[in-house]
Amino acid sequence: MNDIVEARTLKGFRDVLPGEGLLKERLIEQVKRVFLSFGYAPIETPHLEYTDVLIRETSGDIGKQLYRFNDQGGRDVCLRFDLTVPFARFVVQHRQEVGIPFKRYAIGNVFRGEQPQFGRFREFMQCDFDFVGVESLTADAEIIEMIAAIMETIGISKFVIRMNSRRLMNGLAEALNVPEKAGDILRILDKLDKIGEEQVRAALASELALPQQTVDELLSFVAITSRSSGEEVFRSASQYKERNELMRRGLDELEKTAAILKGAGLPEDKFKVDFSVARGLGYYTGIVYETYLTDLPEIGSVCSGGRYDNLTMNFSKEKLPGVGASVGLDRLIAALQKLELMKLENTPAEVLLTLMSEQDAPQIHLLAQQLRKLGVKVEVYPEPSKLKKQFQYADRKGQAFVAIAGGEELSKGALTVKDMRGGSQETYSSVAEAAERIRKRG
Amino acid sequence: MNDIVEARTLKGFRDVLPGEGLLKERLIEQVKRVFLSFGYAPIETPHLEYTDVLIRETSGDIGKQLYRFNDQGGRDVCLRFDLTVPFARFVVQHRQEVGIPFKRYAIGNVFRGEQPQFGRFREFMQCDFDFVGVESLTADAEIIEMIAAIMETIGISKFVIRMNSRRLMNGLAEALNVPEKAGDILRILDKLDKIGEEQVRAALASELALPQQTVDELLSFVAITSRSSGEEVFRSASQYKERNELMRRGLDELEKTAAILKGAGLPEDKFKVDFSVARGLGYYTGIVYETYLTDLPEIGSVCSGGRYDNLTMNFSKEKLPGVGASVGLDRLIAALQKLELMKLENTPAEVLLTLMSEQDAPQIHLLAQQLRKLGVKVEVYPEPSKLKKQFQYADRKGQAFVAIAGGEELSKGALTVKDMRGGSQETYSSVAEAAERIRKRG
Repeated sequence: MNDIVEARTLKGFRDVLPGEGLLKERLIEQVKRVFLSFGYAPIETPHLEYTDVLIRETSGDIGKQLYRFNDQGGRDVCLRFDLTVPFARFVVQHRQEVGIPFKRYAIGNVFRGEQPQFGRFREFMQCDFDFVGVESLTADAEIIEMIAAIMETIGISKFVIRMNSRRLMNGLAEALNVPEKAGDILRILDKLDKIGEEQVRAALASELALPQQTVDELLSFVAITSRSSGEEVFRSASQYKERNELMRRGLDELEKTAAILKGAGLPEDKFKVDFSVARGLGYYTGIVYETYLTDLPEIGSVCSGGRYDNLTMNFSKEKLPGVGASVGLDRLIAALQKLELMKLENTPAEVLLTLMSEQDAPQIHLLAQQLRKLGVKVEVYPEPSKLKKQFQYADRKGQAFVAIAGGEELSKGALTVKDMRGGSQETYSSVAEAAERIRKRG
Repeated sequence: MNDIVEARTLKGFRDVLPGEGLLKERLIEQVKRVFLSFGYAPIETPHLEYTDVLIRETSGDIGKQLYRFNDQGGRDVCLRFDLTVPFARFVVQHRQEVGIPFKRYAIGNVFRGEQPQFGRFREFMQCDFDFVGVESLTADAEIIEMIAAIMETIGISKFVIRMNSRRLMNGLAEALNVPEKAGDILRILDKLDKIGEEQVRAALASELALPQQTVDELLSFVAITSRSSGEEVFRSASQYKERNELMRRGLDELEKTAAILKGAGLPEDKFKVDFSVARGLGYYTGIVYETYLTDLPEIGSVCSGGRYDNLTMNFSKEKLPGVGASVGLDRLIAALQKLELMKLENTPAEVLLTLMSEQDAPQIHLLAQQLRKLGVKVEVYPEPSKLKKQFQYADRKGQAFVAIAGGEELSKGALTVKDMRGGSQETYSSVAEAAERIRKRG
């Protein structure tokens, strides 16, 4: 006899059970539909890559989190930790085959050996879409339109996309004679919503040793977008265009992008310029954006992205600019449940078809096939059992309906359908009528 | 400046480009639709597991192919090499939460460090579906019905599911006094189609040292299913029921399963008992099956499975029988292209909408959104360029249509649609008419 091994997952890893699996697949399917409708095609890269492809030996933090080892052939390999670096490698390797400009999406798991925290795992899914090889702001606008289309498709109507410009903020830091502190300034301004103005002022003064006047100027600039919106922002900020070329260009780009979004029919309450938006990643250089749900701001941005100057600098001397964003699937799944837009269900089936005796099996399976052809998702009870047991099974799985076809009903092609929630029960003389009842659910 | 790293994938690994990516997603979406319609729910398990969960130290061949290493915490871990072992672990770990009987599907990549061969990779996708916790033959029939439904859904009408019984073949070996050679006999009989009767006879006699009479009896048994089909098989084989209990039960099970399939409306040319079918994996114990495409038998089985007695024996003393099958996605993708049922396309978009000047961008993006709402997949050219360049782009991507809205057209809401294959061009006075033309494609 074999020894018994304890059934367990690795620390920081987890299984996805049917309830979450069903939600996740539905969400992914809806997001993909948007990607495809904008002409973005799916690509895949391996989970495993050469270590020197994924990181520089000088890479700091991420290096410690890597799942890195030598494979059977002695190669130094790593599990991918994001989908961006593999994408950069992909574009350089397949530049001729895919053609530039190039639009793609990728959905896949990545691995980071971080200390596991509540709700954070060492293997998790990323969902990225990018448009590379374009300088035009129409691409920036397109990515934002896609975020709005994703929200609409998944049924979230109350959201706002907050946009800013890295170029503009670098220009501001330059105008204030602290260009080298641009990144840190943005990191602190980004906390405005969370910690409030006083604390931000304190942090700018103490952490960055900025003089009082510089702090004042920073806060007064950010105040423009907290007190105004729409075109008024650009009127209020227009004086800053004269400060330097970066500020002029940054403001121009925001204004043009906003004009395309407005023209493309995106309602004005759905996008907002916000000079406190930082967006984490270092490689953004142009317009950046985050998406917040009006009813659940505390879960953070559910979709973020921006423009970068050069995606492929590790792999090629040719510059490749582009725009891209990431959908936070896990946050969206949590949000859709909290907002009661999606319900956790343990089975995809809408109806359990009972099986009363072994000799009924062929006819019951035929009935099930007929229902499926009519668009109903049907589970057949796997063996002849007492009706009570079959109902208990349906209850446990959360089936919406149980359909019963006993001896006499079967011979007449009739079907009794019981609504497991409402409790009502009716006998239909044809499969088509029964199917209609089930599809009209609730 | 950074050094440039060569953009390359690991030996035996590869990227999936948009053409194949689009086909694959479409196929997976269709297969999933079938799974859901039978009440099978998606689950996921991690790519990385404890090594002792995935293999026994005594496991032979598979051990050498494993991607095995110590993680940051010194744990002995492995990339999964199939989806079956993790599923066994999953069921034991979540037995209470998911409830038994349990139906699931899983689609994911697995890793095997084999010597790469043409068309075989070290990372590849598996697609499994299982129904566990059931003894009843209705479950065996259901899995076969699902295979037929998958074929129908993806548009393959000419296929045959060949079924056999492990129990029956073990009974035959027992009846011939060579029970210990049952596995080897089946392995050799399985080659009948490929190497012919003479070579099979030779192999049985020389490799297994079977006496002439035993070889004759084996071949004459297998001949039953090569010369007859349908119910005739069971009439011809009925005499064998008296040889022993295994043969009796094996034949009974095949007959009952065939009766359910027939009753459920599966055409009789779509499933066939074939006593030469072996099915590779060691753990099958009951009915097994393989699926061959009538027009492409050479690509081998595209969907195979069977019944096992005890999925979870490594993790629990409680027995868990079940049935399951695997869809050969890679083979199906190849088959669908060869049979010209799916065409390789490099973009999901049906139409490229041109952009003539920067100030048109808002209106063009609005037009694109209107077309998308009408169900058309639209790509917008990313920057104002000469029409010729935009047409070249559409050509390269293989767009079916180009839609042009210049200054005057834009102001009137008109749209000129050019059919890139047929060459015809027409101007429509509304977006709805243009959308209709595009959706009527070809």
